[in-house]
Amino acid sequence: MEKIVVALGGNALQDGNTNPTAEAQLKVIEQTVKYLVDLIDQGYNLVITHGNGPQVGRIVIQNEMGNEVTPAMPLDVCGAMSQGMIGYHMQQVLGNELKSRGINRPVATIATQVIVDEKDEAFKKPTKPIGPFYTKEEAKILEIEKGYNIVEDSGRGYRRVVPSPQPKKIVEIETIKTLIDNNVIVIAVGGGGIPVVEENEKIKGIEAVIDKDLASKLLAEHIDADILIMLTAVEKAAINFGKPNQQWLDVVNTEDMKKYVSEGHFAPGSMLPKVLAGIEFVESKPGRKTIITSLDSVKEALAGSNGTIIM
Amino acid sequence: MEKIVVALGGNALQDGNTNPTAEAQLKVIEQTVKYLVDLIDQGYNLVITHGNGPQVGRIVIQNEMGNEVTPAMPLDVCGAMSQGMIGYHMQQVLGNELKSRGINRPVATIATQVIVDEKDEAFKKPTKPIGPFYTKEEAKILEIEKGYNIVEDSGRGYRRVVPSPQPKKIVEIETIKTLIDNNVIVIAVGGGGIPVVEENEKIKGIEAVIDKDLASKLLAEHIDADILIMLTAVEKAAINFGKPNQQWLDVVNTEDMKKYVSEGHFAPGSMLPKVLAGIEFVESKPGRKTIITSLDSVKEALAGSNGTIIM
Repeated sequence: MEKIVVALGGNALQDGNTNPTAEAQLKVIEQTVKYLVDLIDQGYNLVITHGNGPQVGRIVIQNEMGNEVTPAMPLDVCGAMSQGMIGYHMQQVLGNELKSRGINRPVATIATQVIVDEKDEAFKKPTKPIGPFYTKEEAKILEIEKGYNIVEDSGRGYRRVVPSPQPKKIVEIETIKTLIDNNVIVIAVGGGGIPVVEENEKIKGIEAVIDKDLASKLLAEHIDADILIMLTAVEKAAINFGKPNQQWLDVVNTEDMKKYVSEGHFAPGSMLPKVLAGIEFVESKPGRKTIITSLDSVKEALAGSNGTIIM
Repeated sequence: MEKIVVALGGNALQDGNTNPTAEAQLKVIEQTVKYLVDLIDQGYNLVITHGNGPQVGRIVIQNEMGNEVTPAMPLDVCGAMSQGMIGYHMQQVLGNELKSRGINRPVATIATQVIVDEKDEAFKKPTKPIGPFYTKEEAKILEIEKGYNIVEDSGRGYRRVVPSPQPKKIVEIETIKTLIDNNVIVIAVGGGGIPVVEENEKIKGIEAVIDKDLASKLLAEHIDADILIMLTAVEKAAINFGKPNQQWLDVVNTEDMKKYVSEGHFAPGSMLPKVLAGIEFVESKPGRKTIITSLDSVKEALAGSNGTIIM
């Protein structure tokens, strides 16, 4: 049974940002899990990871708006809350779908801490936008009062940016392995994991967010997965994306993929982290394969007839 | 190795309601886990559950205050968020303490759904106060706009009350058992579990809160625990509490305890659910024992020299 880490993107968890009620999110997740259960039904051994960008952004907004009455939690705690929220919805809907198809497999969400290096360059130069948009005046106050790093965001207003350091180690990896070995479908490393650092032999939370594709790659390596699937809005990655000579990528080896990276074909914060994580996973052990595709093409991609496959 | 379910009360997780920052909560949890690791060090096999009253109350406040910008989540989702938050802090601090004492045991938080009966009488008569206090005017608006049940709360203002139905089944019980069997210290059923109902073979969330002591008792039965420990602010339960003839209870059998219950010695919403859960656990199988005590008396109570012990 091939072991697959499948990393869900934002669009697999909610329908845009227009109406993010619990009901609306559940509806999207209901569609998403059908595709996942198709794979489980085919005999693949799935481990599920997911992003949390919009969700943790909303939790941060709620924390800030409630701050006069009850203290806002730091980013690590907001990340933990988003793991609880998204994991709960995922495990509920996945459990329902499995049951309706007569598949008897437990599903579990594991609150996952991911260790980053306090000396990571990212802490010197925060780049990842998070939370609400502010006016210039609000931004100034927050910079002084809270020490936030705030940048102007493409004419849409001012926004806090936080560090996005490299994931180094998954604290709960042994638990995750135990569950996989015991037939449990695991949801882990939600939102890239809760960011923590090691200091004097102790772990503690830190204000950061971790890229979920990089964290999913780390998980895939540590559980010795055969395939890393990173789901996104498009069927395939492309070179010269959006230009007249755009070319979708089918099966690509790591050398060619590295060349495309160095030529700047992939957008930072979007396709680039997926491609980089994908190359690293394939190079980490012979036989490992990365697939970048959309949710509704994932079955074809596993059969080799769709998606960008890095081998 | 005796298997113990230990249910942590609010005071084991935060220091009153005065300054519930993440740092302040972590400090309290750091003290709490020292007592727990003492027990682990003595060879007891612990499974940890916890309340979430103040925490989920604050999440509800944050959700309401953010509602103009992003939709407030229902209570089941807020409960899931509180499991993520408290579980993360607990597993981090517990992991640190275990490591510092050279004990190599993984710790894991399991997002836990608990099934309740939609026909439970509690849904007809909501009694559990939750979230912020409202003025009479705010209360009226919320009753109309959101269908909240709101009651006047001891002269302190108006407050939403929600149903507190009996826990019937723990959805993730197989996963919890698997982890216990594999040497993992499990944190589960946080806040009494995320309340869900079964409808047409599907599980879905419901607006309710589940008593954490009753849910802990259910967990203790299903994992075949030897001892159920319910921690509270006092060393022992008492009859005639606060009266001149107050008498602390040491070792009590279930018959006597039932007599005390029928005589109205225990406060509803406080000592009563602990005593009732404790009696039921002891009666569920020969040899099972319940301890009601405070965190700093738990070691003595296990040695038989403190606490109220129901046998």
